[in-house]
Amino acid sequence: MTADFKTESKKIEAMLGEKRLFDLKNLLMEVIPQDITEIIEPLETSERVIVFRLLNKETAAEVFSHLEHEDQEELLSQFGMDKVKEIMEEMDPDDITELFDELPDEMVKRLIRLLLPEERKIVNRLLNYPEDSAGRLMTPEFIELNKDSTAEESIQTIRNIGLDKETIYYSYVVDRKGFLIGIVSLKDLLLAGPDTAIQEIMTTNFVCVNTTDDQEDVAKVLTKYDLTALPVVDKDKKLVGIITVDDVVDVIHEEATEDFHKMAGIEATDEPYFNTKFLVLGRKRALWLVILLIASYLSSFVLKNYSDILQIVIPLAFFIPMLTGTCGNTGMQSATLIIRGLATGEIEMKDFIKIFLREILMGGFLGIILGSFSFIRARFIDVDPFIGIVVGIAVFISVIVANIIGTVLPLILKKFRIDPAISAGPFISTIVDVTALLIYFEIAQTIFHIRV
Amino acid sequence: MTADFKTESKKIEAMLGEKRLFDLKNLLMEVIPQDITEIIEPLETSERVIVFRLLNKETAAEVFSHLEHEDQEELLSQFGMDKVKEIMEEMDPDDITELFDELPDEMVKRLIRLLLPEERKIVNRLLNYPEDSAGRLMTPEFIELNKDSTAEESIQTIRNIGLDKETIYYSYVVDRKGFLIGIVSLKDLLLAGPDTAIQEIMTTNFVCVNTTDDQEDVAKVLTKYDLTALPVVDKDKKLVGIITVDDVVDVIHEEATEDFHKMAGIEATDEPYFNTKFLVLGRKRALWLVILLIASYLSSFVLKNYSDILQIVIPLAFFIPMLTGTCGNTGMQSATLIIRGLATGEIEMKDFIKIFLREILMGGFLGIILGSFSFIRARFIDVDPFIGIVVGIAVFISVIVANIIGTVLPLILKKFRIDPAISAGPFISTIVDVTALLIYFEIAQTIFHIRV
Repeated sequence: MTADFKTESKKIEAMLGEKRLFDLKNLLMEVIPQDITEIIEPLETSERVIVFRLLNKETAAEVFSHLEHEDQEELLSQFGMDKVKEIMEEMDPDDITELFDELPDEMVKRLIRLLLPEERKIVNRLLNYPEDSAGRLMTPEFIELNKDSTAEESIQTIRNIGLDKETIYYSYVVDRKGFLIGIVSLKDLLLAGPDTAIQEIMTTNFVCVNTTDDQEDVAKVLTKYDLTALPVVDKDKKLVGIITVDDVVDVIHEEATEDFHKMAGIEATDEPYFNTKFLVLGRKRALWLVILLIASYLSSFVLKNYSDILQIVIPLAFFIPMLTGTCGNTGMQSATLIIRGLATGEIEMKDFIKIFLREILMGGFLGIILGSFSFIRARFIDVDPFIGIVVGIAVFISVIVANIIGTVLPLILKKFRIDPAISAGPFISTIVDVTALLIYFEIAQTIFHIRV
Repeated sequence: MTADFKTESKKIEAMLGEKRLFDLKNLLMEVIPQDITEIIEPLETSERVIVFRLLNKETAAEVFSHLEHEDQEELLSQFGMDKVKEIMEEMDPDDITELFDELPDEMVKRLIRLLLPEERKIVNRLLNYPEDSAGRLMTPEFIELNKDSTAEESIQTIRNIGLDKETIYYSYVVDRKGFLIGIVSLKDLLLAGPDTAIQEIMTTNFVCVNTTDDQEDVAKVLTKYDLTALPVVDKDKKLVGIITVDDVVDVIHEEATEDFHKMAGIEATDEPYFNTKFLVLGRKRALWLVILLIASYLSSFVLKNYSDILQIVIPLAFFIPMLTGTCGNTGMQSATLIIRGLATGEIEMKDFIKIFLREILMGGFLGIILGSFSFIRARFIDVDPFIGIVVGIAVFISVIVANIIGTVLPLILKKFRIDPAISAGPFISTIVDVTALLIYFEIAQTIFHIRV
């Protein structure tokens, strides 16, 4: 880490306070844009506007694109039109698209008029791709080379046009119809003889994604092939853009966070914790909690149904939280293993039978251990020994069932193209609770020979 | 994706079956190494050995490094010493280190003797850094430039020595003592005038990490600053290696998976689902399940303690799963938000008070909604209306408490440098269960005016 981040941060605040703007301007030139973003985040909007006035336009655009969307919106409404135009001109089309995604429609309409006609066309096109798709993520600013040029000519081309490109480290060779026929890395260009033709150096076996592919799949491809840039083709297989690894790193974080939240029964939020408005987050959390609460009606119903045996053998109630807890935990474990395996691509749908058999065995293994422990534990609570037997058998069977539910549910959801992450945690434990209670009381009735 | 992956895969299997090795050799030259790895994974070891014999040594090394550790171990014991040596000579030191990490000690001792003296020194040094540290992740194969050279001279240097380097897109400028003083990108080199001195082009405000920094922190820095390569310095601040983004992408996946598993109460596993041996995974799963089962002794104890009132008002038992479920879900939500926020760096320890106050409010908000719904729901089960009141108030208070437990527990663990991820899910629900039951029965006793 930059050792002087804290010092820088304090200096900047002091200079702002004392209005030493000339010194501040000089200091800011030495600070990494991402750090400037972090330093100005806690400041007042008016102070942020001052800082932006002091930055050169490239840095201003970069600092701006790292801000949270809410802050961007606020600043845009504070900047003069000239400043807005200046910043947007320096921003990459993919960053502008991302920004427009989050701004209110009316503001987007106003801003889009400030773009140069060429840029406006690009941004409009990117905005037309589905949300979270490769098309939205890509930038059309890549380097195209001719297959018949020499390495030396190509390096010269890159020198001439490279400044505004997203990356100069990979160039793309397309034929006359616009089809991608090869990729050449700057490394290969530099290490090749100056007169070598591009078609002799370029790689012809490459991977590419489609504009409509989901960003999660883009991340998987990029991860698998260890790429730093990935070409994107449209439905006619023509090259239309590239996606670079830095954008994908953000996607990987985003997708993992989304899964974490879904698994905890929170509707997905795009924004970081502190940037999500209280009521928005409250609504997202309450929604699932209420649904699950209503769903747990079933468990009360089951218990009510068995109230006669409960009346006679009150201690049966003592083990309800342990039973539902243990089965919920087991189901949660298998669900998490499957969901995460599906997300990282380690598990595929075709492995269904193999997974199913493995998890039945695993359920049996865990069932024996947990069943024995619960039997012993029940004996410690000092109740009728028959209850220990009921608890032990019930835990054994319910753990097997819970393990299978946790395994199968995510796979079924995946089959129906529903994100399996929503099935974990709360959702599964609600189903598992009811199943375990049914098993428990059926066994109790059988063992106590009470048939109502 | 490569459209022809399936075709390739089938062709390769057919050629292997028919022993058309010459055709196979030609075909393999067209296939991306990662795809070869995937294609040979389901094959028999003997068939894999044949494929490796047909690959050129660069490809062989790459295909080999993408294999799972178990498969690597098996193949190494099948290959002749010459083949092993050939593959290891082509592998990057960081990949060798990763491989040695997973192999049995005895095998490592045998293999390390096969390395060239220079390589052996490097690998030995890398192996000395702590596990999951920046030192383990880095490669010492970076390009060093002199600050007084010109851009043109530097490009020539890169051409001469670039072939074996991990990346040629960033070069590092160190002073006579070995301190890193600047970084220069190949882009800047190419776009600068040929006679410009390196010290005029290089960036002097850069970020770097320490050899002993945890890989999770490395991933955070690289993500924050959108870097493709990150310099690593030793405790004397001397440059010793670089970490490239492709290695970090794997770390991000790994760390997220680890957190998912911990949150589900599974001790961390490094290996993918299918590569973890049944009993290893079974043990890791059983461990926490048993601990939690024993911990849930408390809930049985609480229930036993209130068995008198339970005896009189049996329907109180009907709502136990709903109560513990709802509170568990609420605690799980807040815990997940905090844990994920801490993992991505959005939440820091200094925000404690702010988070705490926010989550008390949030608990109140959720408590009112869930309390009201449970009151209504209890009325549907057609029991004594007083039970509805008890359930409603108990859910209201317990949800607030559960929300705070879910918030505070991860932060406390973090404070004591324990990974907060282990606190989520099962761990929290066990604590929350007991608390909720205590609240429930205390309220029941008060409302039914029964003091035992």
